[in-house]
Amino acid sequence: MNKAMFIIFGATGDLAKRKLIPAIYRLIADKKIDTFVLVGVAIDEVTVDEILNRAKKFITNIDESIWRQLCACAYYYKINFVFKQDYAALATYIEECEQKHNLPGNRLLYLATAADFFCPITHNVAQSGIIKRHEPNDFIWHRVVYEKPFGHDLKSAHEINTCIAKWLNETQIYRIDHYLTKELVSNIALIRFTNCVFEPLWNNRYIDQVQIVLSESVGIESRGAYYDKYGALRDVVQNHMLELLALICMEAPEKLTGDYIRSERVKVLERVKFVDGILGQYESYIQEKDVRKNSQTDTFAALYLTVNNPRWVGVPFYLKTGKALDKKETVISIKFKQVDCLLLKGCPTESNWLTIKIAPEAHFLLKLNAKKPGRTDELVSIGMEFCHSCVFGPRTPEAYEVLFEEVVRGEQSISVRFDEIEYAWKVIDQISAQKLPVHSYKKQSAGPKELEDFSKKHGMRWRS
Amino acid sequence: MNKAMFIIFGATGDLAKRKLIPAIYRLIADKKIDTFVLVGVAIDEVTVDEILNRAKKFITNIDESIWRQLCACAYYYKINFVFKQDYAALATYIEECEQKHNLPGNRLLYLATAADFFCPITHNVAQSGIIKRHEPNDFIWHRVVYEKPFGHDLKSAHEINTCIAKWLNETQIYRIDHYLTKELVSNIALIRFTNCVFEPLWNNRYIDQVQIVLSESVGIESRGAYYDKYGALRDVVQNHMLELLALICMEAPEKLTGDYIRSERVKVLERVKFVDGILGQYESYIQEKDVRKNSQTDTFAALYLTVNNPRWVGVPFYLKTGKALDKKETVISIKFKQVDCLLLKGCPTESNWLTIKIAPEAHFLLKLNAKKPGRTDELVSIGMEFCHSCVFGPRTPEAYEVLFEEVVRGEQSISVRFDEIEYAWKVIDQISAQKLPVHSYKKQSAGPKELEDFSKKHGMRWRS
Repeated sequence: MNKAMFIIFGATGDLAKRKLIPAIYRLIADKKIDTFVLVGVAIDEVTVDEILNRAKKFITNIDESIWRQLCACAYYYKINFVFKQDYAALATYIEECEQKHNLPGNRLLYLATAADFFCPITHNVAQSGIIKRHEPNDFIWHRVVYEKPFGHDLKSAHEINTCIAKWLNETQIYRIDHYLTKELVSNIALIRFTNCVFEPLWNNRYIDQVQIVLSESVGIESRGAYYDKYGALRDVVQNHMLELLALICMEAPEKLTGDYIRSERVKVLERVKFVDGILGQYESYIQEKDVRKNSQTDTFAALYLTVNNPRWVGVPFYLKTGKALDKKETVISIKFKQVDCLLLKGCPTESNWLTIKIAPEAHFLLKLNAKKPGRTDELVSIGMEFCHSCVFGPRTPEAYEVLFEEVVRGEQSISVRFDEIEYAWKVIDQISAQKLPVHSYKKQSAGPKELEDFSKKHGMRWRS
Repeated sequence: MNKAMFIIFGATGDLAKRKLIPAIYRLIADKKIDTFVLVGVAIDEVTVDEILNRAKKFITNIDESIWRQLCACAYYYKINFVFKQDYAALATYIEECEQKHNLPGNRLLYLATAADFFCPITHNVAQSGIIKRHEPNDFIWHRVVYEKPFGHDLKSAHEINTCIAKWLNETQIYRIDHYLTKELVSNIALIRFTNCVFEPLWNNRYIDQVQIVLSESVGIESRGAYYDKYGALRDVVQNHMLELLALICMEAPEKLTGDYIRSERVKVLERVKFVDGILGQYESYIQEKDVRKNSQTDTFAALYLTVNNPRWVGVPFYLKTGKALDKKETVISIKFKQVDCLLLKGCPTESNWLTIKIAPEAHFLLKLNAKKPGRTDELVSIGMEFCHSCVFGPRTPEAYEVLFEEVVRGEQSISVRFDEIEYAWKVIDQISAQKLPVHSYKKQSAGPKELEDFSKKHGMRWRS
């Protein structure tokens, strides 16, 4: 593997602690990197040890000797992201680290910050020479990873993209949605297109509805300053959930590789239309740290969307997400239409459902009708199951570990193309323009009670 | 439940011991009959206790108090099936038993004998008044069950049918294939027609081939006299295996009830054509008791059949059955066609398979392609499973228990209609006319080594 420096902006934040540093630890443990340096960058007055120790508890089954390897190559540098003058010193610091550890100059810059900082940081790292524009085949590479969401609406996304394109080639830019690297998500495309038992059924003739649900049991935790500006629609619907919808809906790409897939996903996002929805906010949200006291930010959203193309016209896509709910899971449920009943009695009351569970554990479940045992023609609903983690072991590589690997390899298929981001924001802007009321809901509940009216109105029932 | 006398002809045989008496025990244990009498009839010089004790070891988890209930109502009567003069005394004996046990006169006569005896026994029981012709709605009923196979070719089946029709109404005749009462077999029709995820795929556009395999590990045991006249084609292909094929292939019946299903099964059997096949005989077969020393009887058969109708034209149906094989199971494997490969590498090497296992344990297995974990687009074959016995408990009613229940209730859907039997014999006669050579094979092997040539020739691989 390439020798590289990892520079994380936002090193004292939630993502670095929970995901990025543990992912780097796993890269070392899995022997996927050897020579590397980690430079954390943030505004806080902390030591690198403090940062590392906070992250340590998010690593399971830690091997102390590997942990010591990581600590020996980790640094912290304090700057103010918007102070141009701080960057020259950072540039020098980075070069010194590289020399000390004999690194050739490859740099992976990870912006684990709010999107507001994407333009100023890119501008400053480019002007100070930390990141240089280069051609795809140059021997030394500089790559910049932009954490989702990319902007907070269509307009801001455009501004950011125009700004960073001034300093970087598209091949250096990684607009990241870590959901796109989750095992099960890449599996969706493969399941659809490599199995004869699903491919012919994947259309409005046989599919009745699709539900995409991303439930979180935690609240916004320490992310108030960020979250209050974004809300659920911008934090997860615009990216994770619309990407899942696009993967479910896309036509077969010519090849199952990066750009072919992205071109097909864009065509889906272009046809997404909002039909109905409700928003919610959990009861004590405004008491959270860094949240405005009169905040109308949505921590919950339930949406009815359609995809207006020949394959999907007439099929409702129900999306639901929320913070502080009664469960934590990400599930796609596909309901197949009912067949004509041939039975005198005991006609199927349950449709066939294909459930693709993405988190917490990965599995597929196919709900079928079968005969009730004994002398009867009555039907019962049975489940055929495949538990991904049971078969492949509990630890398939974590999303962020795969992500780092791909960026170091220069594999751009994990990066979201800007046209995808554009169309996704158009959907969100369309929803925002509705000025939907924000209903209150109890923490650790199933959402606002108005959700029931929504379900009744559309004659549907949530599967999860 | 109706009060009835069960009269078993062939009471000292294998079927009575292994299946019929244990089934009657379970009917009592499950409180499905209370007042009843069992009269065993055969030519052997035995006591009823001997017959009962031989059967006892085929009952698991026996409850002695229930066993005693059965013993208190069981009798044995010795006759020669073809001696007309024996029947008058049997008639008197039966009447006395009925009086003693206060039975109203309902009689279920079970012919667990070779088909050669079907005509003479029916003739004699009718002439002696043991069984009387009556109309469907008469208060007292007499019903006769004919164990499979019904004849040994088309001609003999016709003769038997003509003979018994002289003495009985069709509503009193039960031509039995106990496979038709097996849970999973009745499940096949329901699985096909009540699940949207299978129904649209069930044709030659999506199905590549179907395999129906009925393997037995035991040899012919004490059934030499019977088996040597019949062989595998007549013993199981003509009935069980062609019935399974018909259930897999039939068009949706108007209703999933007896006569509608039978009409659809007939239409399939009418279109079955033999393409190729090999026969086998296990090595020490001719040393078995009651077997001719120069016997060319088939104890193994592998067939390639087609069903020439619009739904199935072009789909091979591979059937395989045998005695003294290396396993004991009944399995239907449905192979779906492969989809176009969209992948650069790691295209599916495995097709999708739906496996319906009928014995020893009942389950469904759907083999799909999924993504190999990690940073790769390679595929692995995964299985989604539903284990019938795991969910519904280890003991769903045994085939013969259901069978007795249905006959007592007068439910004719478990009886095979004579036109089905006719067409099934036409298939067997067509195969017999080929005079296929009979290859030798080792006991507890996978069959004759010529089976490999057969598979190679047709470019197929047996799944079980």
